[in-house]
Amino acid sequence: MRIAVMYGPREVGIEDRPDPKIVEPTDAILRLSATCICGSDLWPYWGIGALDGPSPMGHEYVGVVEEVGNEVKTIKPGQFVVGSFWASDNTCQICQAGYQCACIQRVGMRSAQAERLRVPLADGTLVATPEPPADDLIPSFLAASDVLGTGWFGAVAAEAGPGKTVAVVGDGAVGLLAVLAAKQLGAERIIAMSRHQSRQKLALEYGATDIVEERGDEGVAKIKDLTDGLGAHSVVEAVGTQESFKQAIGSTRPGGHVGFVGVLHDVQLAGEELFWSHVHVHGGPAPVRRFLPQLMDLIWNRQIDPGKVFDLELPLEQAAEGYQAMDERRAIKVLLQPYPALR
Amino acid sequence: MRIAVMYGPREVGIEDRPDPKIVEPTDAILRLSATCICGSDLWPYWGIGALDGPSPMGHEYVGVVEEVGNEVKTIKPGQFVVGSFWASDNTCQICQAGYQCACIQRVGMRSAQAERLRVPLADGTLVATPEPPADDLIPSFLAASDVLGTGWFGAVAAEAGPGKTVAVVGDGAVGLLAVLAAKQLGAERIIAMSRHQSRQKLALEYGATDIVEERGDEGVAKIKDLTDGLGAHSVVEAVGTQESFKQAIGSTRPGGHVGFVGVLHDVQLAGEELFWSHVHVHGGPAPVRRFLPQLMDLIWNRQIDPGKVFDLELPLEQAAEGYQAMDERRAIKVLLQPYPALR
Repeated sequence: MRIAVMYGPREVGIEDRPDPKIVEPTDAILRLSATCICGSDLWPYWGIGALDGPSPMGHEYVGVVEEVGNEVKTIKPGQFVVGSFWASDNTCQICQAGYQCACIQRVGMRSAQAERLRVPLADGTLVATPEPPADDLIPSFLAASDVLGTGWFGAVAAEAGPGKTVAVVGDGAVGLLAVLAAKQLGAERIIAMSRHQSRQKLALEYGATDIVEERGDEGVAKIKDLTDGLGAHSVVEAVGTQESFKQAIGSTRPGGHVGFVGVLHDVQLAGEELFWSHVHVHGGPAPVRRFLPQLMDLIWNRQIDPGKVFDLELPLEQAAEGYQAMDERRAIKVLLQPYPALR
Repeated sequence: MRIAVMYGPREVGIEDRPDPKIVEPTDAILRLSATCICGSDLWPYWGIGALDGPSPMGHEYVGVVEEVGNEVKTIKPGQFVVGSFWASDNTCQICQAGYQCACIQRVGMRSAQAERLRVPLADGTLVATPEPPADDLIPSFLAASDVLGTGWFGAVAAEAGPGKTVAVVGDGAVGLLAVLAAKQLGAERIIAMSRHQSRQKLALEYGATDIVEERGDEGVAKIKDLTDGLGAHSVVEAVGTQESFKQAIGSTRPGGHVGFVGVLHDVQLAGEELFWSHVHVHGGPAPVRRFLPQLMDLIWNRQIDPGKVFDLELPLEQAAEGYQAMDERRAIKVLLQPYPALR
């Protein structure tokens, strides 16, 4: 099968590799309908965090089940399924508490930018649609696999809800979908912090009521201006840098909640700052699996349209061009088609 | 009146200073029944954080109202009252959300190691008992003024409750009262991390089910041993050092909650560590006022006995000896009597 491989910073190619096979009796093999490039794939693309040799890429996927191991009970060949970036048993105490991202049996998913994918712990990891979905829903289901689930978790961790003012730091796909999540969760006011016009437009479409272009201390001051000097009740941090994290904490009122879902790199939090901020802080890699049934239902019923974050679709063969487009911010998020003729 | 003053590291004396007077119409003047020395008073005693010249000390107090300003409506002369370390209006949005420690009008309390004290925003800050309390309840009401409220907040921030395993890092008065709070909040199992026998004894009396003497990585490993390898659901951090904070995060299971109430000094949190821990983090200076009515009720009805953390009582005149006893860990917490003859 064809698969995208990263060889080093800014070096992505497509290779032929053997088709994946059932290894454990709890595995499933999927033929992927769509996959995509994640903002977090750009970190190694930029040379941050060393690659361990040529690395198959990708952890977002939707597809049709081709084969299952003999201990797989609920997932069946022929089903259209959505998974996420951790395979999880969905039965351990940690999964049952809603933290499938820290399942005691978890397996990290890689190599989803490919034609086929082996998914461990298939019954715990995969969620099937009632029927094969219409083609135009596929980008939205693909978004549920990571960026929607991650933005949603950010909004839940920030305790977005009725009567709340929610600010979102970051206008990538995750930030934009955190806006959508805050809207769905009933937030009264949603402030998107963005300085890119096309992203502002999508943020407004997803439910943002205000746009703040300022960053850093000026951004914080602007949020305070909009909230009687108090700060937002809920702030989603969807970038992951020192500056954006500081901006998120500074924008939150005492007693408020920061949900952070940007992958943190070289961020140090000053204990004193956190101590005096009186905010709640929660985040990390999202337990997407917790939210999948609810999110897939919203998509199936066409109540949300998270697939709009994909503003570029390319055949898998052109993965390198996809990385470049995201790097240069020509695209918010790139969908890759393993079998372009089928769509 | 007589008042304790810190002149520099390890230099505490008693001075005569003028009696406090009503300054704002919302003030009250208290004649203090008891006051005490806080673990946080030891930081300047050790020379950590510069003093701004000779500094009146103390922020924990109970006493009888002598006089009120003409805008004070609910607090009356003659009432026995408990206050806390921030004066707060208890009416702003932040107070109403339960964060009186960040009230938009807050005033920090100092100079409570004295015979008399001016309390700003008296109606918002002070809570009165139904009648003057029996003498033997005074230490417990004094504990409510800070250490009980702080330990309680730590347990609430850590979401201690039924079915939960709670670990408490730190065996000072706050840590011990976090154990008491966890018990009252219905925790199933309470692990006190302590290596001092007298403190272990009080922890067990307050409801601890297990004692862990190990610290650092060994302490974390011990907590995991006791919790099926997962970590505690709730961890209260009641020390405030880099090591203790790391120990608290490491002892918490994914999805669990760290409540931190030790005053953080020179603590840096690694963003990546927090990101991958999947824990919730909340804390800071406790909104003691939020809990005062409930805690005073428990004390009034003799359902809890937090006053036991005072294992040394001295006349105010011997404040210097009190600081020394706490510094040398000869005492968990020292109660100072402004009017020893009255007790």
